Amino acid sequence: MREILDSVAAGDLSPAEAEAALAGYATSGAGRFDAAREDRAGVPEAVLADGKTPTEVADLAATAIETTERAIVTRLDAPTATTVRERLDEIAPDATVRWDDRSNWLVATTSAFERPSLDASVGVVTAGTSDAVPAGEAALIVEEMGATVTRIDDVGVASLARTIDAVDGLRDQDVLIVAAGREGALPTVVAGLVDVPIIGLPVSTGYGHGGEGEAALSGLLQSCTALSVVNIDAGFTAGTQAGLIARQLDDARD
Amino acid sequence: MREILDSVAAGDLSPAEAEAALAGYATSGAGRFDAAREDRAGVPEAVLADGKTPTEVADLAATAIETTERAIVTRLDAPTATTVRERLDEIAPDATVRWDDRSNWLVATTSAFERPSLDASVGVVTAGTSDAVPAGEAALIVEEMGATVTRIDDVGVASLARTIDAVDGLRDQDVLIVAAGREGALPTVVAGLVDVPIIGLPVSTGYGHGGEGEAALSGLLQSCTALSVVNIDAGFTAGTQAGLIARQLDDARD
Amino acid sequence: MREILDSVAAGDLSPAEAEAALAGYATSGAGRFDAAREDRAGVPEAVLADGKTPTEVADLAATAIETTERAIVTRLDAPTATTVRERLDEIAPDATVRWDDRSNWLVATTSAFERPSLDASVGVVTAGTSDAVPAGEAALIVEEMGATVTRIDDVGVASLARTIDAVDGLRDQDVLIVAAGREGALPTVVAGLVDVPIIGLPVSTGYGHGGEGEAALSGLLQSCTALSVVNIDAGFTAGTQAGLIARQLDDARD
Amino acid sequence: MREILDSVAAGDLSPAEAEAALAGYATSGAGRFDAAREDRAGVPEAVLADGKTPTEVADLAATAIETTERAIVTRLDAPTATTVRERLDEIAPDATVRWDDRSNWLVATTSAFERPSLDASVGVVTAGTSDAVPAGEAALIVEEMGATVTRIDDVGVASLARTIDAVDGLRDQDVLIVAAGREGALPTVVAGLVDVPIIGLPVSTGYGHGGEGEAALSGLLQSCTALSVVNIDAGFTAGTQAGLIARQLDDARD
Amino acid sequence: MREILDSVAAGDLSPAEAEAALAGYATSGAGRFDAAREDRAGVPEAVLADGKTPTEVADLAATAIETTERAIVTRLDAPTATTVRERLDEIAPDATVRWDDRSNWLVATTSAFERPSLDASVGVVTAGTSDAVPAGEAALIVEEMGATVTRIDDVGVASLARTIDAVDGLRDQDVLIVAAGREGALPTVVAGLVDVPIIGLPVSTGYGHGGEGEAALSGLLQSCTALSVVNIDAGFTAGTQAGLIARQLDDARD
Amino acid sequence: MREILDSVAAGDLSPAEAEAALAGYATSGAGRFDAAREDRAGVPEAVLADGKTPTEVADLAATAIETTERAIVTRLDAPTATTVRERLDEIAPDATVRWDDRSNWLVATTSAFERPSLDASVGVVTAGTSDAVPAGEAALIVEEMGATVTRIDDVGVASLARTIDAVDGLRDQDVLIVAAGREGALPTVVAGLVDVPIIGLPVSTGYGHGGEGEAALSGLLQSCTALSVVNIDAGFTAGTQAGLIARQLDDARD
Amino acid sequence: MREILDSVAAGDLSPAEAEAALAGYATSGAGRFDAAREDRAGVPEAVLADGKTPTEVADLAATAIETTERAIVTRLDAPTATTVRERLDEIAPDATVRWDDRSNWLVATTSAFERPSLDASVGVVTAGTSDAVPAGEAALIVEEMGATVTRIDDVGVASLARTIDAVDGLRDQDVLIVAAGREGALPTVVAGLVDVPIIGLPVSTGYGHGGEGEAALSGLLQSCTALSVVNIDAGFTAGTQAGLIARQLDDARD
Amino acid sequence: MREILDSVAAGDLSPAEAEAALAGYATSGAGRFDAAREDRAGVPEAVLADGKTPTEVADLAATAIETTERAIVTRLDAPTATTVRERLDEIAPDATVRWDDRSNWLVATTSAFERPSLDASVGVVTAGTSDAVPAGEAALIVEEMGATVTRIDDVGVASLARTIDAVDGLRDQDVLIVAAGREGALPTVVAGLVDVPIIGLPVSTGYGHGGEGEAALSGLLQSCTALSVVNIDAGFTAGTQAGLIARQLDDARD
Repeated sequence: MREILDSVAAGDLSPAEAEAALAGYATSGAGRFDAAREDRAGVPEAVLADGKTPTEVADLAATAIETTERAIVTRLDAPTATTVRERLDEIAPDATVRWDDRSNWLVATTSAFERPSLDASVGVVTAGTSDAVPAGEAALIVEEMGATVTRIDDVGVASLARTIDAVDGLRDQDVLIVAAGREGALPTVVAGLVDVPIIGLPVSTGYGHGGEGEAALSGLLQSCTALSVVNIDAGFTAGTQAGLIARQLDDARD
Repeated sequence: MREILDSVAAGDLSPAEAEAALAGYATSGAGRFDAAREDRAGVPEAVLADGKTPTEVADLAATAIETTERAIVTRLDAPTATTVRERLDEIAPDATVRWDDRSNWLVATTSAFERPSLDASVGVVTAGTSDAVPAGEAALIVEEMGATVTRIDDVGVASLARTIDAVDGLRDQDVLIVAAGREGALPTVVAGLVDVPIIGLPVSTGYGHGGEGEAALSGLLQSCTALSVVNIDAGFTAGTQAGLIARQLDDARD
Repeated sequence: MREILDSVAAGDLSPAEAEAALAGYATSGAGRFDAAREDRAGVPEAVLADGKTPTEVADLAATAIETTERAIVTRLDAPTATTVRERLDEIAPDATVRWDDRSNWLVATTSAFERPSLDASVGVVTAGTSDAVPAGEAALIVEEMGATVTRIDDVGVASLARTIDAVDGLRDQDVLIVAAGREGALPTVVAGLVDVPIIGLPVSTGYGHGGEGEAALSGLLQSCTALSVVNIDAGFTAGTQAGLIARQLDDARD
Repeated sequence: MREILDSVAAGDLSPAEAEAALAGYATSGAGRFDAAREDRAGVPEAVLADGKTPTEVADLAATAIETTERAIVTRLDAPTATTVRERLDEIAPDATVRWDDRSNWLVATTSAFERPSLDASVGVVTAGTSDAVPAGEAALIVEEMGATVTRIDDVGVASLARTIDAVDGLRDQDVLIVAAGREGALPTVVAGLVDVPIIGLPVSTGYGHGGEGEAALSGLLQSCTALSVVNIDAGFTAGTQAGLIARQLDDARD
Repeated sequence: MREILDSVAAGDLSPAEAEAALAGYATSGAGRFDAAREDRAGVPEAVLADGKTPTEVADLAATAIETTERAIVTRLDAPTATTVRERLDEIAPDATVRWDDRSNWLVATTSAFERPSLDASVGVVTAGTSDAVPAGEAALIVEEMGATVTRIDDVGVASLARTIDAVDGLRDQDVLIVAAGREGALPTVVAGLVDVPIIGLPVSTGYGHGGEGEAALSGLLQSCTALSVVNIDAGFTAGTQAGLIARQLDDARD
Repeated sequence: MREILDSVAAGDLSPAEAEAALAGYATSGAGRFDAAREDRAGVPEAVLADGKTPTEVADLAATAIETTERAIVTRLDAPTATTVRERLDEIAPDATVRWDDRSNWLVATTSAFERPSLDASVGVVTAGTSDAVPAGEAALIVEEMGATVTRIDDVGVASLARTIDAVDGLRDQDVLIVAAGREGALPTVVAGLVDVPIIGLPVSTGYGHGGEGEAALSGLLQSCTALSVVNIDAGFTAGTQAGLIARQLDDARD
Repeated sequence: MREILDSVAAGDLSPAEAEAALAGYATSGAGRFDAAREDRAGVPEAVLADGKTPTEVADLAATAIETTERAIVTRLDAPTATTVRERLDEIAPDATVRWDDRSNWLVATTSAFERPSLDASVGVVTAGTSDAVPAGEAALIVEEMGATVTRIDDVGVASLARTIDAVDGLRDQDVLIVAAGREGALPTVVAGLVDVPIIGLPVSTGYGHGGEGEAALSGLLQSCTALSVVNIDAGFTAGTQAGLIARQLDDARD
Repeated sequence: MREILDSVAAGDLSPAEAEAALAGYATSGAGRFDAAREDRAGVPEAVLADGKTPTEVADLAATAIETTERAIVTRLDAPTATTVRERLDEIAPDATVRWDDRSNWLVATTSAFERPSLDASVGVVTAGTSDAVPAGEAALIVEEMGATVTRIDDVGVASLARTIDAVDGLRDQDVLIVAAGREGALPTVVAGLVDVPIIGLPVSTGYGHGGEGEAALSGLLQSCTALSVVNIDAGFTAGTQAGLIARQLDDARD
């Protein structure tokens, strides 16, 4: 501990980095950032922008980059993205920032950041164009956790030939995340055809009864196959679960 | 009208038959039986046993057989079936009575009854064994309306080969009723493969969230194919809708 | 296949048309367009604008017109309609474009397009003015599938004389689509009066408990008549189901 | 007050009667009986058997008959009815007891009881046989409040001729209670045809989505007519509301 | 009929008036207006603006004033109100127009209109300020039907003294409409204190679980008093039901 | 720790007691009993019989009495009560056992048990007879935690005089638990009249929409007073929360 | 009373103050303000801005400050805050106004106002940044009732070390309000660790199934600990309940 | 194929075995058994007894054992278990049959059956005794798929020490299945402490709002950790998902 405090005194370590090293979390104006999450739970901490003000999101992103050399922000809209970018420009002007305005995520990394690399592949599968938002979020976090992502898009069962054409590609993956909105039939059909673990990701498409992803969610929960499921649009959760399995596989393959 | 009343006076017509002929319905102790339904709406009147006492069901069945030479009773349990049979034994001892204790229906016909015969075929399709109850009810009423029924069972999508093996048989039908519980994916997959009208019939299987057929119903309503749907376990409704289409086809084929 | 590829090489066939001919679907920047859907499932493929960006909708509409000489877009708002029209102006400047800003659909056809013509009539019935949106969508797709559409409007049961005045017109149709919001009583009353198949179309009117069409949907599912049902506001689905029945009738009448 | 206490001392008044006269309620072993309810709120107090033990129901019924010369018990099953009858036999052996085992109510009156008589008529209307339970409960309480009850049964809209045949009879009533289960369309149709106040009474029939009366309730709440509504199966509430209107009319007619 | 057509030919009667006189309804560009509703069902026809375009609302309002000398529009927002006023300015420049921008209704009457006058009083009661919107709608229609309205405001049970202070005023009315949001306890408490018929009007206040009026509605349906109920915010329905009772009382008092 | 183990060796301490002393919990065949709960969280551990077999309940009750000299079992039916009593007869034949077959709880204590005694009073209030089950469970646990319980029964607001008569008694308590089913208005009315903390306890009475206590729960959550709430029928939770407040008051009064 | 009226005549007392003193409430243009609430029910009256117009809120705030020297407004947006401030500037120019634009409350006090001071401490605990809104509302009202508030933020269980680090601080409080959104696990974990009464405050975070705080609410209601609960986002209710307990403790400590 | 048919002819292969080998499924009187499921989808086919008659279950179990030397039946009650055992006694008298009457499963294997053996460990974790049913079902199927199961019971978070004591054991597993009913907090807490993939298994305990496992399910879906989830009580699905991950790990470890 003395060493850490010496580094702070010498200016080699920011107070946030020191707090993160000592307590496992860093306190910003907008709350605490769980800098130790990746070590402890195997999953990088991300900032969920929903329910926070742009300033709070920027504060937490800044703390993230200070303590872990990377900031991952999800579900942020354009004005929040602007606020975050401005803050990062100030505190980490040479950071690389990627913003996906379709899947609404932003990732910034400093040059000091080293992304892990796992010997495992995750397939991210969609039924149609409308599944892009959560599928993109899932792919992002799988990549940030270090696994290889393969996108297999537009293979919805209303046109079963497309699904069947894709089977070989699906079998090549170690884990699959299968997104589907509306009636959510795709994950069930895929799970009947391949023997890799599948995480069903319901998507908030559809209107009327069972709309907003509720039919897809309940269909996935009722599936007579071996699916596990995450919440509607919870691409981040699907991705981290797939990432944890990839970590186990990478470990087993060493 | 005079003729009818003369027949009653002469004992050639029962009062119930006379009322049915004059007013379109017959009054029993348990309520009115809509004897004119088949003429007016194309669908034979049936007695739904749910929510009625065994005696009420028997009264209505007796009136049915008196006025139309046939009684169709649905959703009746074993004790009600016994009460109905005893009543029918009294009033129409030579009637033919069929009771299906799996699909819970009973049909009685006198020798005077002539079942219609339609030049049209209806496929009744199930995903698995648990769909038997409403599928049986649907098949019954299609047959009573005069169309040819073909059963195509156990073709659920968890084992997609079974589904695909069945496609040619499915394409041979004029109309399909496709039953499915749990996640209800089968009707969507079938509707993507064949170009005949399909009526989705959700089945009250499944437990937990979306159980009792709710997931199947909302999945069918959300389907991105051209399905129409009936309520959970509403085999009778699916069957009558298919029967009405069969009547139109039979008429067109003349 | 060689022939197709020769045509591409010669510039007589676009790559999208070639892909559609070979694989049954065409890939655009925004996903795959199921060009073979009409052949396989009897229903023209349409682009559902909900949940897609204007650019994605325009991409898919462009692919549709390239591969099938027609683009059908549903549930599109005014800005998306503008984007689509601009794209179609570029790629198919002589196409005929119809946009219905009440029912929110757009149909474009090139001069090469030949709409099918079916010997069958579909009645599209509304209870009141507020049912116009999904009824218009249903009528559109029935027409695009080639059947004759008759609109029978404003016959809600609160003023029963209007309903009864309409009965003869209703009986003249081969199939009926009956739209109704609020308590959704119209389809049940109509189904008690006519012997043609009826597809109930619940409409998202009404506020408070059972609002947004939920009361109408559950009422239609509970109806003691032979109705089948589609989801709330699902005019497209009601129309395609009616269209499939019309195709069977047309076939039977040949 | 002294007078009352003197009567108790003299044995002319039971303690329960005295408590009722002084405090407005009488305390039994099973809770308090609101003996003053009829004076204060115009509605006789009844004992709802649901959620009480047979002994508690009997205690409250005994207190009712002691303090008001009448006991009304609703929603009681056969064993509870037996317990209540035995208790009443003990404490009021000459009371007249009526038990309706279809609508599950029991009414006992001593010879001292004088039922009110109102110059007002209430029609109790049902769509079909299955509506008998709550309709019977409604009719009971209207009669106990003193109005004239007319039953108009089996006029469901699936057979619209029956409904229309009944219109003249419906128009003759001062108030209507219209019961309906399943899709609950009858009250809306009737309210479009007559100009008397109507209380819609949803009935817990129907299975699947919207079953157990939920579709009927939400349909009645969504009705575009002037209906008011009570809860599913709440025949007692419908009856008391009609009875209160009847009281106002009787008063106005004096 | 000849007389009516002669009047049209002579220009003394508009085509809409003639259609209303002959068929009971008048057809505008936006649908049919049920001009005979007041005669048949005792309730003036009103135009519900929800789900219609401003132009459609204006069309229907114009037809209303042409055929019945009065137009009642409910749930209209400010832009729609402007469109309606402009249309009425054109076709009936001397009509009196009242617009309530809190309760969102508009009433226009020509000088030829004679409002009915009933010998009956209706109390419209609120628990608090937030109940103003539907209470105002209810009061409007009661007045348009001709009964006397008394407003009794801000008597919510959280401050029981206010409720009890109001009891004498409540007992003076022939009928009460009691509005209440949140937990909806006021109608139950009032119904325990007075012996006039009460219509409970749940209001869409409240957030979280049971918010938007759902808790109030279910509380009113569960009330152990003699309440009848209308849907959440359905001031118009509560008002017409009260108006129908007032008509019966007025008739009885003659 | 050595001391404890020596006692086990000497037979002065059962293994369960030793485990409880060392680890805070004791392991039985049916799971762990949280013997340290009262020390840590201020609330005695109880055995919830729901979802356990009679044998499992008896195992846990036996462990409870072994480690804490008291066993509290809630929501147990008659056969389970018999199994528990038999087990307790074996292992603690001189224990005092109380079983309440209305509120479905059982408490056993050995002579070594010393119940705490708190200087604080808790009022347990019911609206009517049907609230007895959870009110009895709440009263039980408050007594077992050592506070004084006063029962104030049958003061429902449908008869407001009863409620107001009770106000002085209610104001004398330190804390109130107010049970109410159906529309759940009582806690709101009481909270407007007294200034002590109130815990609302919804009761699973009522049928139809909002039945089974759902209307009462949502009404309590929506109340515009300072109520806190527990789940439907959760008398145990209401009682422990009241008990914790009583402990704080007892501590403050020392 | 004479004294009060003399003061009004002399101009020493406003009419609102006089009405408040005499009747317990004061009438403004926008409704009645319950000036006696704090005396009667122990809780200061506040103005809930939801569902009221800015002018109505300002009217009620003005009446509040006139009659009690303090105005508390909750759930007000920025434009309403501006309207309220302008009104207060007019009628009480020297009042101190605090506005929290994150938790959306405004408190104004005149120099004559004396805030109570209670010898009791309330901890307001949050799981994360998104809980700030209702936690701030709860803290506000606890302070206005006079208890000491300690904020313990960002101790969510996903990073359990943060929770455990906070335990000692939590045990130091007399009462805890624990806010939590999403899955709402924090209050259960805390309740297992400390022996003070805890009020769970669910927060409307989270999307998909169980979003908007519904999962947190149902989780808190299901908790196997001694929690009581308030509605989603009901910081005001949680705060007043804690404040009432604090008042009892303050009283006991005297 | 000829070889197979020869074997049938020779009596070396039953017709069911032959059908399974040729078509991938075997047809019994009660439906088809998906004998190829394990090869294709990695998961052994099991017979779900819910919704089937005892005879149907026995038929399918017999076919299972004929074609795969093993029968797995889930969710079967005692009478069904008896029927199945009797049938197995007939057709495979030397099979080993295990029946778990707490978790309601039955497994039979012939001596020819070789259970797979995977180099991977799965922890099955419960919060309390009531989680035993689905946890037992999960453990069963994991074992049948060949992985090592470790049970870690009774570590619910209400007694956090128990949870923390278990952490090291939890970290030793490759995958965790964490069951929890009521508020379902355990999986979230565990997922914050360990870095292995976790499958949350909600359990149908709990009464009142959110009861029957709905609160647990929505809490798990809302969890801010990397959980995936299966339906309420879906131990079989949780187990097969864990088994598929175990297969991947076993493969990677080779």
